[in-house]
Amino acid sequence: MTLSATPLRLSTAAATFEADFAARLHWSADTDAAIEQRVADILADVQQRGDAAVLEYTARFDGLQAEGLAALELTQAELKAAFDAIPAVQRDALQAAARRVRSYHEAQKKASGESWSYRDEDGTLLGQKVTPLDRVGIYVPGGKAAYPSSVLMNAIPAHVAGVPEIIMVVPTPRGERNLLVLAAAYVAGVTRAFTIGGAQAVAALAYGTATVPKVDKITGPGNAYVASAKKRVFGTVGIDMIAGPSEILVLADGSTRPDWVAMDLFSQAEHDELAQSILLCPDAAYLDAVQREIDRLLPTMPRAEIIAKSLNGRGALILTRSMEEACAISNRIAPEHLEVSSTDPHRWEPLLRHAGAIFLGAYTSESLGDYCAGPNHVLPTSGTARFSSPLGVYDFQKRSSLIEVSERGAESLGRIASVLAHGEGLQAHARAAEMRLPGDTA
Amino acid sequence: MTLSATPLRLSTAAATFEADFAARLHWSADTDAAIEQRVADILADVQQRGDAAVLEYTARFDGLQAEGLAALELTQAELKAAFDAIPAVQRDALQAAARRVRSYHEAQKKASGESWSYRDEDGTLLGQKVTPLDRVGIYVPGGKAAYPSSVLMNAIPAHVAGVPEIIMVVPTPRGERNLLVLAAAYVAGVTRAFTIGGAQAVAALAYGTATVPKVDKITGPGNAYVASAKKRVFGTVGIDMIAGPSEILVLADGSTRPDWVAMDLFSQAEHDELAQSILLCPDAAYLDAVQREIDRLLPTMPRAEIIAKSLNGRGALILTRSMEEACAISNRIAPEHLEVSSTDPHRWEPLLRHAGAIFLGAYTSESLGDYCAGPNHVLPTSGTARFSSPLGVYDFQKRSSLIEVSERGAESLGRIASVLAHGEGLQAHARAAEMRLPGDTA
Repeated sequence: MTLSATPLRLSTAAATFEADFAARLHWSADTDAAIEQRVADILADVQQRGDAAVLEYTARFDGLQAEGLAALELTQAELKAAFDAIPAVQRDALQAAARRVRSYHEAQKKASGESWSYRDEDGTLLGQKVTPLDRVGIYVPGGKAAYPSSVLMNAIPAHVAGVPEIIMVVPTPRGERNLLVLAAAYVAGVTRAFTIGGAQAVAALAYGTATVPKVDKITGPGNAYVASAKKRVFGTVGIDMIAGPSEILVLADGSTRPDWVAMDLFSQAEHDELAQSILLCPDAAYLDAVQREIDRLLPTMPRAEIIAKSLNGRGALILTRSMEEACAISNRIAPEHLEVSSTDPHRWEPLLRHAGAIFLGAYTSESLGDYCAGPNHVLPTSGTARFSSPLGVYDFQKRSSLIEVSERGAESLGRIASVLAHGEGLQAHARAAEMRLPGDTA
Repeated sequence: MTLSATPLRLSTAAATFEADFAARLHWSADTDAAIEQRVADILADVQQRGDAAVLEYTARFDGLQAEGLAALELTQAELKAAFDAIPAVQRDALQAAARRVRSYHEAQKKASGESWSYRDEDGTLLGQKVTPLDRVGIYVPGGKAAYPSSVLMNAIPAHVAGVPEIIMVVPTPRGERNLLVLAAAYVAGVTRAFTIGGAQAVAALAYGTATVPKVDKITGPGNAYVASAKKRVFGTVGIDMIAGPSEILVLADGSTRPDWVAMDLFSQAEHDELAQSILLCPDAAYLDAVQREIDRLLPTMPRAEIIAKSLNGRGALILTRSMEEACAISNRIAPEHLEVSSTDPHRWEPLLRHAGAIFLGAYTSESLGDYCAGPNHVLPTSGTARFSSPLGVYDFQKRSSLIEVSERGAESLGRIASVLAHGEGLQAHARAAEMRLPGDTA
């Protein structure tokens, strides 16, 4: 049987558009209650029994036996050996990507992650001090979705933020290690690494065990168990975000080579059957041309089966009335990846309010951003770009307000605070302010 | 019976210090399973039945009946009427506080919340675009902990960020409205306000109902039901943080008037029996002096009973070997509020890594920061200052990466991406990069 990939064809002018469009977008982030319960049990068990529990779950779920948890730690020598073992072309690519990711995140830190303060007219100092976290945990998936690029994307911003200890966990089912992942950990400067995964690894990082140090925040993607565990330990530690299936939305004015756009849709679809690839364009003939390239290129793809399932089940080619309308629809989706494939991308960019990353112009394929352009590839999915941001240096820093009230400031501020505190029935608050007024006799 | 307040007296030199200190700090953020289940049911019910469910819970939990949810909306005229009805001195204080909070958050936005970009040597553009959220929900507690200052502290940063719609919810048990809260909503420029609360209000904001618009993020403190509901809807919407009991830690070198410090400890303790007030000082005589002021001032406090319970149950006066040791202990606690009551606060500030807000010098009472110094009073509690930050403009913005790869950049980046994508077994990613190389024939 020949594979075919035919994304749903929609037109915003059709009467049924809203319903068809909503149905195609539908994806529920609701967690399975059975998974939730199992994760709660695993977390409680690791919190209580520590290393022993982590070892047992690793044996059971990953088929990986060990004498003790210390035996599951990867040494720096092992990480370096992995780096030395991979082909030179991969070593160079990893280092070049790391260099670019580092330089982008350094610019990010300079633009938005430095301490600041000022004095007001009373001489009162106000500001914020920015401090790196002490220790963070990075979850790296193992198995079929083991991505060395994710190691760089999580560890480098933590490094740039100034985090002194970066603890990586990566499951190695049946002991199979991914050399590129280990090499990436070496390049990114991971402090310690353990071959554990799942909810048990999240628990070990969140609560600490005799062997695994307790961290302040856990970042990185994972399966439903990992996502549920991260959500549950949120508050005990910080977490980055809960990732859903990956998505790309391409806004095309019809000027980009249709084979390029077809391949960009494929590059999202090849991740996962649930991944979503959508193309919006005001030119019906261009949509036809992209469909022809899809048909032509699909048989050449090693992951054609996943691509076909993703495009048939969740993909869409949507004819819009205009580029303006395409931008408005994009804002409703708030896509993780947004390509503006146009000769004039800066005309449309200001109209785009919600997206994890915006790729401007025909040369900016999403895959360049995934690996090495510099910006982070850990991005908000499933519409959460409405309220959240790419992983960044800011995720590995926190802020403390700084206030130094001058004697004169204590007078002007004290009178305001006293009135408001009495209004709230908090008399000690009021008295603390009043005592600092000139002439107050306690 | 006469009330007395005697915080636990500890010394870091004592053999039992570590155990005693740990016991005093102990507080568990674990949610009650029964509450969790009830909240899950309420959320599911509101998601399904919308307005009708919110109305029923409001009648049941707040004793407030209404024909429809629209009847529970406060009009702008009602907010303005509340502002007009309060005494002029309160109106002035609210406006002065709002002005200072606004000006601080404007400085914050300028320092860390603006878009940025640069071009690399290949002409590739990289950066981040900062966008305000479209619509946010602000939870304001009702009843005994109804704080108008919290309305300012939540709504003003949202405004400064540029959020066009700010939806406030505030429960009014048995219909009792707090005029100052309504007046603060007027001053802060809240867009719409509903007199609903609890998990049902969180659900209404997260999912939207016929009457209450769906928001992108929910901020603001609340009781255990509200906290559990916020945690549960996290992912569908953004949330700020999960608040625990309020805490103050005072580092004193013994130079500040002991009655001032005693009152600062009271001002935390008067919030709540679970609130925690701790004083660290290397001078035993100073700790005695503060205890004497506690004894003298307690009878003068209207909330003496709460203060006594909090100080007796959770307070501590700790003798340290030095100010350096006091700073190290403070870092272990990562307090919400940290006063450095010293003649030389800038000597100690660099040693302080983890705190929500740092108050420098004797004049800087926490209560000035709570109301009107400018920085936000919504701060990370229960040690979460290790990884989280005060509420700020950044909570009401999100970022989108911007990438525009030049023709030359597509060449240099394409070669790197191709190697790494093949290494990860993602051939469509590789092909998308390779197609943009010069001379590629697809």
